[in-house]
Amino acid sequence: MSSIQDNKFQAIISHAKEYGFVFPSSEIYDGLSAVYDYGPYGSELKKNIRDYWWKSMTQLHDNIVGIDAAIFMHPTTWKASGHVDNFSDPMIDNKDSKKRYRVDHLIEAYADKLTEEGKGQEAQALIAEMERLLSTDDFTGLKQLLIDNKIACGVSGTTNWTDIRQFNLMFDTKVGSVAEDADTIYLRPETAQGIFVNFLNVQKTARMKVPFGIAQTGKAFRNEIVARQFIFRMREFEQMEMQFFVRPGTEGEWYKYWKEARLQWHLSLGIDQAKYRYHDHAKLAFYAKEACDIEFEFPIGFKEVEGIHSRTDYDLTQHEKFSRKKQQYFDNDLDENGKAYGNYVPYVIETSIGLDRMFLLILSNAYEEETLTKEDGSTDSRTVLHIPAKLAPVKLAILPLTKKDGLPEIARELMDECKQHFRCFYEEKDAIGKRYRRQDAIGTPFCITIDHQTKEDQTVTIRHRDSMLQERVPLSKVREIVTQAIEK
Amino acid sequence: MSSIQDNKFQAIISHAKEYGFVFPSSEIYDGLSAVYDYGPYGSELKKNIRDYWWKSMTQLHDNIVGIDAAIFMHPTTWKASGHVDNFSDPMIDNKDSKKRYRVDHLIEAYADKLTEEGKGQEAQALIAEMERLLSTDDFTGLKQLLIDNKIACGVSGTTNWTDIRQFNLMFDTKVGSVAEDADTIYLRPETAQGIFVNFLNVQKTARMKVPFGIAQTGKAFRNEIVARQFIFRMREFEQMEMQFFVRPGTEGEWYKYWKEARLQWHLSLGIDQAKYRYHDHAKLAFYAKEACDIEFEFPIGFKEVEGIHSRTDYDLTQHEKFSRKKQQYFDNDLDENGKAYGNYVPYVIETSIGLDRMFLLILSNAYEEETLTKEDGSTDSRTVLHIPAKLAPVKLAILPLTKKDGLPEIARELMDECKQHFRCFYEEKDAIGKRYRRQDAIGTPFCITIDHQTKEDQTVTIRHRDSMLQERVPLSKVREIVTQAIEK
Repeated sequence: MSSIQDNKFQAIISHAKEYGFVFPSSEIYDGLSAVYDYGPYGSELKKNIRDYWWKSMTQLHDNIVGIDAAIFMHPTTWKASGHVDNFSDPMIDNKDSKKRYRVDHLIEAYADKLTEEGKGQEAQALIAEMERLLSTDDFTGLKQLLIDNKIACGVSGTTNWTDIRQFNLMFDTKVGSVAEDADTIYLRPETAQGIFVNFLNVQKTARMKVPFGIAQTGKAFRNEIVARQFIFRMREFEQMEMQFFVRPGTEGEWYKYWKEARLQWHLSLGIDQAKYRYHDHAKLAFYAKEACDIEFEFPIGFKEVEGIHSRTDYDLTQHEKFSRKKQQYFDNDLDENGKAYGNYVPYVIETSIGLDRMFLLILSNAYEEETLTKEDGSTDSRTVLHIPAKLAPVKLAILPLTKKDGLPEIARELMDECKQHFRCFYEEKDAIGKRYRRQDAIGTPFCITIDHQTKEDQTVTIRHRDSMLQERVPLSKVREIVTQAIEK
Repeated sequence: MSSIQDNKFQAIISHAKEYGFVFPSSEIYDGLSAVYDYGPYGSELKKNIRDYWWKSMTQLHDNIVGIDAAIFMHPTTWKASGHVDNFSDPMIDNKDSKKRYRVDHLIEAYADKLTEEGKGQEAQALIAEMERLLSTDDFTGLKQLLIDNKIACGVSGTTNWTDIRQFNLMFDTKVGSVAEDADTIYLRPETAQGIFVNFLNVQKTARMKVPFGIAQTGKAFRNEIVARQFIFRMREFEQMEMQFFVRPGTEGEWYKYWKEARLQWHLSLGIDQAKYRYHDHAKLAFYAKEACDIEFEFPIGFKEVEGIHSRTDYDLTQHEKFSRKKQQYFDNDLDENGKAYGNYVPYVIETSIGLDRMFLLILSNAYEEETLTKEDGSTDSRTVLHIPAKLAPVKLAILPLTKKDGLPEIARELMDECKQHFRCFYEEKDAIGKRYRRQDAIGTPFCITIDHQTKEDQTVTIRHRDSMLQERVPLSKVREIVTQAIEK
């Protein structure tokens, strides 16, 4: 990561804290590693992203319904899904410093150093070798790779390593009244399994016909060994997932459909397509047929924000095996020979997006430190968040020019009307320019100023965040102007 | 609980499952005790309740902002709040059956039996004595109360009890990479502390002036020993809490204000006031000044759905003590002597409502098995959910009378228009009466039927859920009619 990129990322993190978007969790106790709290404007932005996803996936699709499954699930769920046995990272300890590392992170950091030194080819070969060894769980080989490359602990400076061990990323807890009769349960590491175990309940009660989808948003938890990069990788995070159940044999076309549809969803927010790219997975989970990531160009480089996965019938079949309950759908549509397709376990296409990452995407894309040239040629600057109007935490700021002459009363009346329909902000203190800047910094798309002319002709000044243009409009039109912009 | 009440409660639970509102968690694995999943219609109803609360508390109040704090918090938070030391229930084991009970539940069950046998006075005296002993943590006395009343284990039938022990209700887990260097953290047992530890961050970044509030919705977890009554008491549940920070000395008037305002919120949903009552707490937490519950008459009797608590400056002062960071507000308003109030730790009024309980309230209040008398004098019946239109999972069902003659095309066009604005349901199969009944069962306030007359005069039949009245209205007015009803 270059220092310019790093500076921009740091500036966004500072801005997020200073303007009430994201705080370190329990900050008065010096924080909790890799956990964050969303502040007054952050919680609104996060909610707006979640609602926009939810509406577009469920309300606008007749054949997708939602659920809201609990974080706690029966522990057998995670045996069936493979998480108990396989959801782990390879770790290693340095015997001198007693520090623990993820092996892949150690090697990646060393490869980054090589690249900086101009040894890009060597770095690439190293990463390729690491991936080969990881894919076959060859831990002896991986350890040797560390030693051969003299990859040392950053604290002790030695290569005095323990053997590599697997570390499961699921958090566990005990449910029940005392240790001896309590069951170990897990905090779900993904929301998807809540959809799979409810597949038949949903299909039957909502009378769904294949192909159909089940959508869900909710918290998931991973005990990341090294969590980093702000809210990009957290121990507690929120997913927005949709599992689309299809007839076996049609998964290829549906994978293609959702891969395209999900990118279009991102673009519907007006974000530049050049900042997005697909990353098709060469290496697949053993049960997967196809998989890709939608990557976005964050200030820290292109990173995954969403995954689309063709998961076959793996999960439902596993749950069938572990629960001994059929997970089949009866399809009474007719095939080309005029015979009903009959019973089958559907195949699944998954779309999975991290809500916190999407939040970071919106923030990164919106953040700008702008230099302004005034009419007299002097320059000024502002920090502005170009958040899409439909996602902005506050839609409209209502600002009486002065605190007297009846202007606040007019402003309050407008506030009372508009706040029924969208979030407004009222402020009567400080110079108007200062008030505009504060709204720019939280991404409010519109400011209305009530001045003395308003009393004469019932018009107000509307000021547009991005262009900073101001125009006079009738007071009676304000609500409509804002409504149209946020519904666009 | 009478058997009629019990029957109604059971009918609601069955209905909730059959129509996709609430499923037992991980049902294919025979469920997880005291955990439930919300299905297609349940997840919408729950979201609508949450959104209605959020809008009324934040968007409609200039002086209340939201946050979204993480479930994981620094463990010292729970030392400061008193949960590590005091958040526990008294439990007892039967030595013969090895079964464990909450002592108060054992005594309450016995008191219920006495009441059923006509010994109401005796039951009341027993409960009063239990409460006295609980309030002084007199466990020896409590055990003696069991023995004196010959309260026996339901399994072994004996009174061979162990001593009473305190059992902490917080779930814990380990964060970090291995046991030896991992920290024990808790799943939050209430969302309130996420607000308290962020008090200054919010006040400063959103530039709030006392009095102001911070609102939050989110999951909380309690390892209830005996969880019962469906979604009324769960191990994983969702809270909607607001902490209102006030100048010391004004907490009495603000307590009164919020006590009244919260009841009005419930009544704004059109629910009969006779089903609500206040329960003022005689016994208060040691730091509390006043507290009351808003109780609702569920099919299982009057039960708490929301609490309003005057919490003094206890929590902020505790966090000041444990974090060694000042939790003070500087108030530059002038007192009666013209002097600024200056620095102080604000007092707090809390409003705390259980989202799942509110869901159960709406469902219980809405559920009706109605006997209908037809024109020919014969009777029919329907099960209908009279859910307030603004909370209903589906607002509008669009039903072409037949699958042909271009009726589906007209219906689809209406669907495409309306689904941009609210949730719609499309169905063209089955007799119209059957389709109406299914919408009644999920609480859809409006059904539109497209018939052959629609093609001639562009009118449709709108059918009202509660009255079952049908009227013809212009196709072009449908969206407006529904919008007005849900915004009312």
